[in-house]
Amino acid sequence: MIDEISVRYFDNFGLKEPVDPIMIEGLPGIGQVGKLVAEYMIHMLGAEKIGEIHSIYFPPQVVLEDNGIARLARNELWFYRASGKDLIFLVGDHQSTSNEGHYLLADQYCRIAEDLKVRRIYTLGGFGVGHLVNDPRVLGAVNRAELQEELKAAGVIFNREEPGGGIIGAAGLMLGLSALRGIDAVCLMGETSGYLVDPMSAANVLTTLSKLIDVPVDPTKLNDRASEMEKFIERFVESNRVQKDEELNYIG
Amino acid sequence: MIDEISVRYFDNFGLKEPVDPIMIEGLPGIGQVGKLVAEYMIHMLGAEKIGEIHSIYFPPQVVLEDNGIARLARNELWFYRASGKDLIFLVGDHQSTSNEGHYLLADQYCRIAEDLKVRRIYTLGGFGVGHLVNDPRVLGAVNRAELQEELKAAGVIFNREEPGGGIIGAAGLMLGLSALRGIDAVCLMGETSGYLVDPMSAANVLTTLSKLIDVPVDPTKLNDRASEMEKFIERFVESNRVQKDEELNYIG
Amino acid sequence: MIDEISVRYFDNFGLKEPVDPIMIEGLPGIGQVGKLVAEYMIHMLGAEKIGEIHSIYFPPQVVLEDNGIARLARNELWFYRASGKDLIFLVGDHQSTSNEGHYLLADQYCRIAEDLKVRRIYTLGGFGVGHLVNDPRVLGAVNRAELQEELKAAGVIFNREEPGGGIIGAAGLMLGLSALRGIDAVCLMGETSGYLVDPMSAANVLTTLSKLIDVPVDPTKLNDRASEMEKFIERFVESNRVQKDEELNYIG
Amino acid sequence: MIDEISVRYFDNFGLKEPVDPIMIEGLPGIGQVGKLVAEYMIHMLGAEKIGEIHSIYFPPQVVLEDNGIARLARNELWFYRASGKDLIFLVGDHQSTSNEGHYLLADQYCRIAEDLKVRRIYTLGGFGVGHLVNDPRVLGAVNRAELQEELKAAGVIFNREEPGGGIIGAAGLMLGLSALRGIDAVCLMGETSGYLVDPMSAANVLTTLSKLIDVPVDPTKLNDRASEMEKFIERFVESNRVQKDEELNYIG
Repeated sequence: MIDEISVRYFDNFGLKEPVDPIMIEGLPGIGQVGKLVAEYMIHMLGAEKIGEIHSIYFPPQVVLEDNGIARLARNELWFYRASGKDLIFLVGDHQSTSNEGHYLLADQYCRIAEDLKVRRIYTLGGFGVGHLVNDPRVLGAVNRAELQEELKAAGVIFNREEPGGGIIGAAGLMLGLSALRGIDAVCLMGETSGYLVDPMSAANVLTTLSKLIDVPVDPTKLNDRASEMEKFIERFVESNRVQKDEELNYIG
Repeated sequence: MIDEISVRYFDNFGLKEPVDPIMIEGLPGIGQVGKLVAEYMIHMLGAEKIGEIHSIYFPPQVVLEDNGIARLARNELWFYRASGKDLIFLVGDHQSTSNEGHYLLADQYCRIAEDLKVRRIYTLGGFGVGHLVNDPRVLGAVNRAELQEELKAAGVIFNREEPGGGIIGAAGLMLGLSALRGIDAVCLMGETSGYLVDPMSAANVLTTLSKLIDVPVDPTKLNDRASEMEKFIERFVESNRVQKDEELNYIG
Repeated sequence: MIDEISVRYFDNFGLKEPVDPIMIEGLPGIGQVGKLVAEYMIHMLGAEKIGEIHSIYFPPQVVLEDNGIARLARNELWFYRASGKDLIFLVGDHQSTSNEGHYLLADQYCRIAEDLKVRRIYTLGGFGVGHLVNDPRVLGAVNRAELQEELKAAGVIFNREEPGGGIIGAAGLMLGLSALRGIDAVCLMGETSGYLVDPMSAANVLTTLSKLIDVPVDPTKLNDRASEMEKFIERFVESNRVQKDEELNYIG
Repeated sequence: MIDEISVRYFDNFGLKEPVDPIMIEGLPGIGQVGKLVAEYMIHMLGAEKIGEIHSIYFPPQVVLEDNGIARLARNELWFYRASGKDLIFLVGDHQSTSNEGHYLLADQYCRIAEDLKVRRIYTLGGFGVGHLVNDPRVLGAVNRAELQEELKAAGVIFNREEPGGGIIGAAGLMLGLSALRGIDAVCLMGETSGYLVDPMSAANVLTTLSKLIDVPVDPTKLNDRASEMEKFIERFVESNRVQKDEELNYIG
């Protein structure tokens, strides 16, 4: 029988011994904020793929890549050797389709962190507010009280009103489950409408994360994409305004 | 692999030997009646938390506490040493998200009761009637016929018409599953609309339970909250009435 | 951990050795036809309860009996010693809430049949046609071609057009799964609207089954209930007709 | 307990040693394209049934065959000995009802392929475009880049725009899961509206597949059925057009 969850490391990873590694999770979620940040960092830093995760809890479909090759839905592990602190990225196509699968997958991710002696996990996500946000803040959550000061110093907002309902999926569960394994974990959530893929929110999360882990990542391209998005939204809002004016003229 | 359900007792509990204990279950449910009663008792009696239950059958999310710390959704066990009869409280964030999980969790709760040599289980809940209730009654169910007399003497209503459709979730299943382990169990259900958190109904259940277990609990604060709720509802009903009158005036 | 499905025989059954037994399944389903027939037979023959089945695949709730006692949702086994051929009845509160549970429960029922050396299984159900039926027929299905002749001789209809979409739940699955264990099985389906509990349809299934197993069961009370139902429907149809006429008068 | 998935080979298959076999999957799906092609080939080639697959992940119902015999929902394996390359067909009533079941079943199919030393798997399906298609193309996907050339030469379209969202169910998962076992796999998808059973699309897939595996299959009867379907649609479209004209006349 196929494993419910399988983790496979590539051979290239066998030769490396991660040094004091930090794990950065950026799976699909609200506004794709976490995914945008983690995949952008992988791209800009030139990280190396070291492993893949398959699971019967992902949607039952294959992903078609540009060259017509089908592959299983999967999550991926990427590695970047920074000076004195290695980064492990967890990114991928999907989260679980079932409630129980969410727990089983998130626990597997934490076990990977434990196996690789990860000293801190950063989970990245979006915090949906239901309206467009001009200057999206970065909200935080931690799995140990002592972690807050450092985050506040980096401008992360801790607000007892937000987010009221908890954090759903891997970004949340990894905080709770890693605590059981004695691993520190932090969740950074970019404020976002929740309606659109949000590179603006992602750019702010990137800036905060980059500062926190002290690994510089040139944000230019993400900012460019955010600017394009902003212009697109402005045009959209403007055309809506014009249309409404015209309707008013018509009525008037 | 993570356990489907895990029960962890705190070290503080190791030193105690529960004396003839009674278990009181007050998990989330209709009108939050059971939750209100059990958590109020824990607060007023100054009970001590002795353990936590985690499960993949809870919703896949973490709860954010006021201080920005995320923790897994969980159920909790609390302990109160009354003279000659200890109380074990079972409270928590959630019930199961799946049908099968409901059975597996309720059976685990009954196993805890068996392990702790609990002599009787009280499960608390709301009985939704679909309309506001002025003087909510306390309805009962038992898992052994001999338990009825004592309850009737305490004013608990047994009405073959109510509740017709059975009792759903932990409050019901624990009655059925504890019978298989030879443990007596009683369900107290506060009549409630089902639309609102209902401290009025909870206050009546508290009074009945307190009498039955002969552990006095000052109901003042719960009654206060019930009075506030009552005023809130009166104002709401009044403002609706006024609004309707105005609408009639407007039409007239 | 609680068993997914548990079967418990009562002590009274230990002393009996079933002789050439026939199993009759009448679980809840379309028009409650199967349930009506099996429970009526149990009542009229004075069968004896010999066991109970509990499962996490039943709905997560307890059933409240008239005396205020809560019990787990369950299925039941009943025994009746006819001359030379014993009857085993399978009845109960619910079928499975999940697709997989349907298979696991139905297979368990077939294992019980195998353990008790059942020589034939009759599963009973309703066949919903979506409109009121004046003289409901009894449709059949078998799990071995040779079984048809005997059924046709008893007036059971085999019509390749009906029921096109297969037979859902225990009444169907037990035919398929018992074949894997080498047990003959027959499904009798009473034609029924599908909208109402249907004692008329049940009475016809009872007559057919009684003839097939050569165990006389006085159908009077079921026929009485069918007559009452018929009168109720006639009054309902009549009052609808009158109402429509009045509406027409009003319009006219 | 019943197996979650059971595979049973018939005795007739024990004597054969498949030679360099190709597996052709045609389970139910969009437009029933894959099912039409595989079942047509089985019929026209006179393949022999060699095994059956049952599973608790199929819908919980039995299928009624024309002769009134009920049988479990199942998938089937058929065998055809071509010169120098045997064909194994995988067809059946249903796919999985649950996400996890899709993975477990597709992996079981790939294990069968591995056990039978299958050298290539063809999965067949429909590619729904949401509108009627005059000359339906055959789109492809592969699980290894080197497989594309041969398919392109046979007229199969690889278009990075299509199908954007991946391939759902067995036809997709078998590509991904067989790659883990080192088996080449190709998916052929007939363009189809997605609203109707589509023998036109199936005929094109058949022609392509027949060429690729170099096993001639007379397409006449499938083409006939496609022609009938085409006429039916033409009449339907025409009658709709006439009706609209009449409506316009009525308005005019």
